[in-house]
Amino acid sequence: MAESARDRVTRAYARLSESDRPEAWIHLRPMDEVLADADAVDSAVGTATDAGRDLPLAGTVFAVKDNIDVAGLPTTAACPGYARTPDRTATSVRRLLDAGAVLLGKTNLDQFATGLVGTRSPYGACRSAHDPQRISGGSSSGSAVVVALGIADFALGTDTAGSGRVPAALNGIVGMKATVGLVPVDGVVPACPSYDCVTAFAPTLPDVVRVMRIMTGPSERDPASRVWPADTRLAAPPAPRVAIPLRANLDALSAEARSRFDEAVDLLRGRGVLVGELDITEFLDAAKLLYDGALVAERYASFGDYVEQPLEGTDPTVRTIALNAREVTGAELVRDQQRVRARRLRTRTILGGFDALLVPTAPEHPTIAQVQADPIGVNARLGRYTNFMNLLDMAGVAVPAGAADGGVFGVTVVTRAFDDQVGLDVAGLLTGTAPGLYPDLGCEVIVFGAHMRGFPLCDEMVRRGGRFVTDVATSPHYAMYALPGDIPKPAVVRTSGAGTSLAGEMWLLPSAGLGSFLAELPPPMTLGKIELADGRWVTGFGCSAPAGTDISDFGGWRAYSQVPSRRSPAG
Amino acid sequence: MAESARDRVTRAYARLSESDRPEAWIHLRPMDEVLADADAVDSAVGTATDAGRDLPLAGTVFAVKDNIDVAGLPTTAACPGYARTPDRTATSVRRLLDAGAVLLGKTNLDQFATGLVGTRSPYGACRSAHDPQRISGGSSSGSAVVVALGIADFALGTDTAGSGRVPAALNGIVGMKATVGLVPVDGVVPACPSYDCVTAFAPTLPDVVRVMRIMTGPSERDPASRVWPADTRLAAPPAPRVAIPLRANLDALSAEARSRFDEAVDLLRGRGVLVGELDITEFLDAAKLLYDGALVAERYASFGDYVEQPLEGTDPTVRTIALNAREVTGAELVRDQQRVRARRLRTRTILGGFDALLVPTAPEHPTIAQVQADPIGVNARLGRYTNFMNLLDMAGVAVPAGAADGGVFGVTVVTRAFDDQVGLDVAGLLTGTAPGLYPDLGCEVIVFGAHMRGFPLCDEMVRRGGRFVTDVATSPHYAMYALPGDIPKPAVVRTSGAGTSLAGEMWLLPSAGLGSFLAELPPPMTLGKIELADGRWVTGFGCSAPAGTDISDFGGWRAYSQVPSRRSPAG
Repeated sequence: MAESARDRVTRAYARLSESDRPEAWIHLRPMDEVLADADAVDSAVGTATDAGRDLPLAGTVFAVKDNIDVAGLPTTAACPGYARTPDRTATSVRRLLDAGAVLLGKTNLDQFATGLVGTRSPYGACRSAHDPQRISGGSSSGSAVVVALGIADFALGTDTAGSGRVPAALNGIVGMKATVGLVPVDGVVPACPSYDCVTAFAPTLPDVVRVMRIMTGPSERDPASRVWPADTRLAAPPAPRVAIPLRANLDALSAEARSRFDEAVDLLRGRGVLVGELDITEFLDAAKLLYDGALVAERYASFGDYVEQPLEGTDPTVRTIALNAREVTGAELVRDQQRVRARRLRTRTILGGFDALLVPTAPEHPTIAQVQADPIGVNARLGRYTNFMNLLDMAGVAVPAGAADGGVFGVTVVTRAFDDQVGLDVAGLLTGTAPGLYPDLGCEVIVFGAHMRGFPLCDEMVRRGGRFVTDVATSPHYAMYALPGDIPKPAVVRTSGAGTSLAGEMWLLPSAGLGSFLAELPPPMTLGKIELADGRWVTGFGCSAPAGTDISDFGGWRAYSQVPSRRSPAG
Repeated sequence: MAESARDRVTRAYARLSESDRPEAWIHLRPMDEVLADADAVDSAVGTATDAGRDLPLAGTVFAVKDNIDVAGLPTTAACPGYARTPDRTATSVRRLLDAGAVLLGKTNLDQFATGLVGTRSPYGACRSAHDPQRISGGSSSGSAVVVALGIADFALGTDTAGSGRVPAALNGIVGMKATVGLVPVDGVVPACPSYDCVTAFAPTLPDVVRVMRIMTGPSERDPASRVWPADTRLAAPPAPRVAIPLRANLDALSAEARSRFDEAVDLLRGRGVLVGELDITEFLDAAKLLYDGALVAERYASFGDYVEQPLEGTDPTVRTIALNAREVTGAELVRDQQRVRARRLRTRTILGGFDALLVPTAPEHPTIAQVQADPIGVNARLGRYTNFMNLLDMAGVAVPAGAADGGVFGVTVVTRAFDDQVGLDVAGLLTGTAPGLYPDLGCEVIVFGAHMRGFPLCDEMVRRGGRFVTDVATSPHYAMYALPGDIPKPAVVRTSGAGTSLAGEMWLLPSAGLGSFLAELPPPMTLGKIELADGRWVTGFGCSAPAGTDISDFGGWRAYSQVPSRRSPAG
């Protein structure tokens, strides 16, 4: 039986008191308030008829970066002068609370989410969960630390230039930054509003996907919301093509870090990935647009007023960055926004036929002393492999990849916008865990023959973004014939009387993929509803002109053809 | 037999010499050069095996607004100081030339496409084709005039705030501004690059659609290119819901103009449109963002350098507009860009369940003297019903709607982004012409029963963006049964021996719509390939468990059910 919300909360506070990271929090809620929330969840689970569906996050506790609004709690963005108490909860957080998650409190961050170090905060420099001498990374510093320490089951960050990925790497957990716009950003203190994302941290890939899926979906409160296109790919192909940077692009890595990266690449190769080197200079150079050009005007517009005066609690580095943009002209911004668009097109072309790109998340794991000695320089180095992503409209999932040079190390799987699931599947090959399905769309289709995994037409499913779901069996009312023809295919027909239960595969196809699949289906194949052994009727293959030998006794095409089953990465 | 390109060119120059509008041109090509191009087209048509397909525009002549590049001809943007001769032709123009259209020359415009009057040009104030005392409208002034005079079969304009629509209205022709990004804008002198579109003028709706379709499609040269989503609607519903502005929103119209607008509304009502009043103040107020806010920085960024000095040929009004934006800060632009996004969401919500919005194109048809007396004021009034469209990511097609107050009058059908075809179909109800299909996508499906026009499940096709194409007949190898059940449906099956030719309907569905249609199809209905009378195999309805009475002798479900055929607006 799953842990009750009350027990989970009690355990969280116990874990919190034994872990020496008080700087991770800006506002920790009193335990009695949190327990009251937990009791409400436990009692809803106890009475609801299908609580498992209504409260999928019952029994979990989480934390929220303190630049995301929760009604009744102050939002500081780590700037005391900014603090205000909103009366509305951000849509992202609201969806998690509605799913039964219990909120522990608000976490520390680099002020106004401007930084990748975790030290730019008057509430304290966040220390990595793994080593108190080293930084947590930022800007979503506290959220990553409390997840890595096991205090929270998951936590929310935000990400504009790497803030949801670098802290994942430097605390040895998973951080997911979906395509810009999929998770609403209403109730988030803007940094660069054109590129800001709400992200999630969790110990494992399926945990992070579960949380992201609940937060995802357009909101009337976020004008930049985007919806999944009808042709969104629902899986990586069985042999994904993954680009890795040229050795010259990896010059920021130490020998040890380079070894960890190479090991990750070898792991992918060993799991069927086709790896190819790619010069990613054009990606890396995009960072200059983000920080050295006119786009910083977005930061000045967002929080310039709060750092104009060097008040107590204003981080001097964050202040300098914002004020540097005060003089940017509108025309300069227009030109840099056009450069971003042009760069997007160019990098898409460079990525070409690759399904994803693997990069280090952070190239190194600095100590707090190193950051204090060179706050701008270390920060810039940390963002080398993360800065480009939001700017170029890409998605990323950061996963742990061991230790290097006394710190922790991680890698990020990067994909084009809306290919989030492709990236998750590749990340799953790295972590050895099935990520689960992130996009909330897709049509079920049952295939019985040449479209199954390992058969000649399977690529028809794969190239349409199809995802293998599970092996299935029909109700015992079907017959299978071996159709004559060039490509061996079965004809499946429903019998009027007694028949056979046939083995097939269930796939998910995006609606556009299912449409184009049907449009290209040759006669005499048809698609209609098939009755499964569990009584459900699901779209699947039939035949309008069955012919050939009755092979029903084999129970399915795989047994008849003697082609063994093969696990695909999408499985 | 169609007119040869040579004959068409000869006729164009004859028409040109008899029409007194020399100011319409900035660069008219010498007739002998144009005839040489025409001969090349004629000879290609004469030799090509399927020239009709390869050169669909053979025999047509066109003109290009002089802010769009044609290799070897100077591009001036109506600013002599800007003039330069490009060595590459804009993708939009290239596609038309490749389709066999012959270019006559480059046309006059409001300088840097900044104006809706047609008078802001050192090359002369353009006069309406209908009345030399009145303005042509702008900024695509010359292009509209040469089409209205019958010199060119079609012409290209650009449109940021109405430049592709106002001149259509004030010359009594059709102007189409598709969704931003569908037609590539590489090779176009930018005005407000985030919102600039290439547009087409033609005398009729089908003519304009044919041209737009050829120009549409992403280009590697335009980073802002957009592709049709897989769920793009391919038709207006049979009874489209069209919003019209509240009477208070139409205060800019004279009594006569108001009568013309009301007549257009009555015409729509008479053709089955469901008309509803809508307060469009939020749409109209967006104009303030375009001209009175920070977005003008896009114009300053685009051509500010060319108007900094009040050189000869610099239009003083255009210069003032651009220089007003010199001091706009990046932060101000960021905030106004966020306001645009918020406004987009709000207006989408306001438009709600309406398929389209009908507005006047220009509220009045000013004289040249009126514009000279008040160049800014008249211009602002002209854009009242056009300014909001690109900013709010909407598409529009402007059609003639009679005469008012001594000038001409027109209306525009406005739709959400990518609903271009919906707008075209509504416009077709106004003009009484079938517009043809604009989006280049869709899957053919044959339906035989309850999904046909006038039958109870037809809405399943309509709400997925389906478009009725034509009545069809199968090959004589089918049988039809009247299936028992709540909703009367036929079962169509292929016969093994002799059978019947059955009547059905061919529809187009977007691929996503076909996929979701299949996903929801109940047993025993199936979709597979159907053999038509012409031998083609097309996706269509079948049945995996035919039952009931054989009704093949009726030749189809409509004859059996005695439901008469009904022409839909999509037809």
